[in-house]
Amino acid sequence: SNNFFLLAGPCAIEGEEMALRIAEKVVEITNKLEIPYVFKGSFKKANRSRIDSFTGMGDEKALKILRKVSETFEIPTITDIHEISDAKMAAEYVDILQIPAFLVRQTDLVVAAAETGKVVNLKKGQFMSPESMKHAVTKVTDCNNEQVMVTDRGTMFGYQDMIVDFRGIPTMREFAPTVLDVTHSLQQPNQSSGVTGGRPEMIETIARAGIVNKVDGLFIETHFDPANAKSDGANMLDLNYLEKLLGNLVAIRKTVNSL
Amino acid sequence: SNNFFLLAGPCAIEGEEMALRIAEKVVEITNKLEIPYVFKGSFKKANRSRIDSFTGMGDEKALKILRKVSETFEIPTITDIHEISDAKMAAEYVDILQIPAFLVRQTDLVVAAAETGKVVNLKKGQFMSPESMKHAVTKVTDCNNEQVMVTDRGTMFGYQDMIVDFRGIPTMREFAPTVLDVTHSLQQPNQSSGVTGGRPEMIETIARAGIVNKVDGLFIETHFDPANAKSDGANMLDLNYLEKLLGNLVAIRKTVNSL
Amino acid sequence: SNNFFLLAGPCAIEGEEMALRIAEKVVEITNKLEIPYVFKGSFKKANRSRIDSFTGMGDEKALKILRKVSETFEIPTITDIHEISDAKMAAEYVDILQIPAFLVRQTDLVVAAAETGKVVNLKKGQFMSPESMKHAVTKVTDCNNEQVMVTDRGTMFGYQDMIVDFRGIPTMREFAPTVLDVTHSLQQPNQSSGVTGGRPEMIETIARAGIVNKVDGLFIETHFDPANAKSDGANMLDLNYLEKLLGNLVAIRKTVNSL
Amino acid sequence: SNNFFLLAGPCAIEGEEMALRIAEKVVEITNKLEIPYVFKGSFKKANRSRIDSFTGMGDEKALKILRKVSETFEIPTITDIHEISDAKMAAEYVDILQIPAFLVRQTDLVVAAAETGKVVNLKKGQFMSPESMKHAVTKVTDCNNEQVMVTDRGTMFGYQDMIVDFRGIPTMREFAPTVLDVTHSLQQPNQSSGVTGGRPEMIETIARAGIVNKVDGLFIETHFDPANAKSDGANMLDLNYLEKLLGNLVAIRKTVNSL
Repeated sequence: SNNFFLLAGPCAIEGEEMALRIAEKVVEITNKLEIPYVFKGSFKKANRSRIDSFTGMGDEKALKILRKVSETFEIPTITDIHEISDAKMAAEYVDILQIPAFLVRQTDLVVAAAETGKVVNLKKGQFMSPESMKHAVTKVTDCNNEQVMVTDRGTMFGYQDMIVDFRGIPTMREFAPTVLDVTHSLQQPNQSSGVTGGRPEMIETIARAGIVNKVDGLFIETHFDPANAKSDGANMLDLNYLEKLLGNLVAIRKTVNSL
Repeated sequence: SNNFFLLAGPCAIEGEEMALRIAEKVVEITNKLEIPYVFKGSFKKANRSRIDSFTGMGDEKALKILRKVSETFEIPTITDIHEISDAKMAAEYVDILQIPAFLVRQTDLVVAAAETGKVVNLKKGQFMSPESMKHAVTKVTDCNNEQVMVTDRGTMFGYQDMIVDFRGIPTMREFAPTVLDVTHSLQQPNQSSGVTGGRPEMIETIARAGIVNKVDGLFIETHFDPANAKSDGANMLDLNYLEKLLGNLVAIRKTVNSL
Repeated sequence: SNNFFLLAGPCAIEGEEMALRIAEKVVEITNKLEIPYVFKGSFKKANRSRIDSFTGMGDEKALKILRKVSETFEIPTITDIHEISDAKMAAEYVDILQIPAFLVRQTDLVVAAAETGKVVNLKKGQFMSPESMKHAVTKVTDCNNEQVMVTDRGTMFGYQDMIVDFRGIPTMREFAPTVLDVTHSLQQPNQSSGVTGGRPEMIETIARAGIVNKVDGLFIETHFDPANAKSDGANMLDLNYLEKLLGNLVAIRKTVNSL
Repeated sequence: SNNFFLLAGPCAIEGEEMALRIAEKVVEITNKLEIPYVFKGSFKKANRSRIDSFTGMGDEKALKILRKVSETFEIPTITDIHEISDAKMAAEYVDILQIPAFLVRQTDLVVAAAETGKVVNLKKGQFMSPESMKHAVTKVTDCNNEQVMVTDRGTMFGYQDMIVDFRGIPTMREFAPTVLDVTHSLQQPNQSSGVTGGRPEMIETIARAGIVNKVDGLFIETHFDPANAKSDGANMLDLNYLEKLLGNLVAIRKTVNSL
């Protein structure tokens, strides 16, 4: 099919039951809508604002849950890595290695991911232009790994706001499949509380603008109970709204594909 | 119909023949596509970067051309005003008075426009948030003129670039019909030459993202020969591409309206 | 002397007694510190966020107060103009005509000011680069008026904050005497209340950084009772702190002049 | 004394002779001016724009050069770390561990640095507000390490420019000694070439604005031959200009200290 794909899941893996329940629900929706689906979960959170923030339940344990999700539903999985040594370890469990936005300029880390032979998803730094992501992509392809994609997660706009520059979608699609991360694009960083805020009511606005411009994939963090998620709750999509959202987006994409 | 409307024309009125030719072509296209059309032309350009830039062919003469376009094709017209005294004069010739982005904080000017009883189109300052446009709208409605709309023309992003914040569309639609100015949103200001640059290849990207988010109208400057237009040539749409662009947008809007 | 000069006063002229009291106090301080002083007062405020904001006590009356301040203390005065017709009128009463930041791209207004033969103070738009102010300066000198200066009042940084780019001071000093407006540089615009906020505790930080980089003049709005000023109270300097501030700045400038 | 301190050196350690020659020259100057001096050199460069950029001469070898510089001139040294495992290794050779701006949100890395007991220098992310650095500082002090300082290296301003927000100096000095990195604050990132540009002619402008606002230290990359430095050449200070620059700054600081 000619549909967009979906990277979705909770932000962090909080436990096996939670992961399986979320995956099951998303699989059901994406099967119905014929959306290729990749389950996303972080096996640790290394870049929290405050030291008392939740940082994960333990590396190996979380990676095993990712594998179990993959085997149970026969879907690929993606996780993010933060240290060179994470690359090899995570590559044994998941299909796509993601380089976080803050770390996309760390050449050693990108190369370590590329050398696993897995697909590499490079998040655009909040401080980077769409054009400059070409250099990050080249770091992967220079390792003889052509399986690389990029993800826009918004750009710094003043201290406490982010903006999505939709000119970046056609720009980045010229050198790699491009994903739009609607969850993190709506962050409101640098809040005085030390907890990142968000504007989840704008998820569909941002998602539509991407889909209508032929973005290849969407990245959405979703949870049955965003208010109680252990991280990124401020921007997560309530799983109960996912089907309606994706249904709208599929209809729009079909029209776009027909033009 | 439930379609978007179009404000379009050359940037400045350069002559009667040119204005009529452009209007004729756009009328033909918009009739076919059932898009309500308003002819746009500036009767003077007061805010050029350099003193040697073209500033118009003479107020009265240009306004008369606007009226002639209106009568010839039975379409409404819009022009922008820069001084309080412009309001009354222009109101005798056109249907919509537009307050330029740089001037939208000039209370006296907004009030003068409002008091003519004409429709007032308030452009969002490059330096203003979508939310703050509510105060500008209130200045019009406080004059007992409910016919007010707002137009986003992009927001400053560093010295030499602009960005469109699509969160602004649902935000501003809560208090007024909202137009997206795809021409000026793609400006690249503060170039060392003193001539504003642009990225016209991104017109459809920006327009689609607006249409899919239910923007009420589009503002497009167009010309048979953008390279030789006397102002804003860098971002104008070649009139030969307008029909294809609008056709795509109408198809997208139909799908959106059906969701 | 080789000292910086000072443009200072209340934001708007609220009454004769108030104006004379403020001028008297500032004259006393600047005489002691050998700082050339220009009294600043707006005869109307045309660009308020909300229509119910104070917009002035009446043009002619306020201009006469400016002249009275000038004659009483034998000091020059400055006021800002918003319409072409203001230029001639204000030029009969004051020594320097100021073009507000929002209006500095209005060629007709700049030319009208230049043609009075008075000194013209061009405020840098919040949306303009320091380099691009060269074009505004040229509009004045092209009218055979060489008496032109520029004033930095900060640059947009996200929707609700401003930033001073100190690289702009040496840049703009290459084409005109340059003033740093410490009051408006600290504005926090686009607040949801419709009333601009501020960070007056940063006045000395910003002023010092300008003085140490040889800015030619400072612009400071000051009032005996900032909390009750009719406009811009959020950033005004309490007049009781002015002497200490200026004393520090003069000491720093003396050292800089000796390097 | 009450003077500011200096972190300075080449960007990357390119070889022993080069390091010793630079250190010798800076020691001579800072001794004369009574400026406490810390030699700075990166033992590897992990975050280059392009994979073919120079990334260092080898970890252990470069760290030994840092130690040799320290022993030869009896001065402390600083280097930056990029992986958790770097912390322990580098701590055996240097006195201050620096967390790069892109990595300052990586909790594990900050904690690893803190737990060595060495002084930790946290660079402010280009995407962070001065206020939000408080959370980074707390991550260090929560490890019972009170020896922490922060360094401003500019803030993203559009895609291809950076800006220094001097309000950040008093803000950050409230929770930690604050350094101003004049070299990286003048970067011009995201250039189409993949090589970061710069504006070294603005070094003294930025440095003066920091010194006059009581910044505790300055960070300057310097080289006998910036054009041929293997990284960051675009913003490095030619070592021949260092004495004149520092002399001016010391004079200014003395005046400031006397106020």
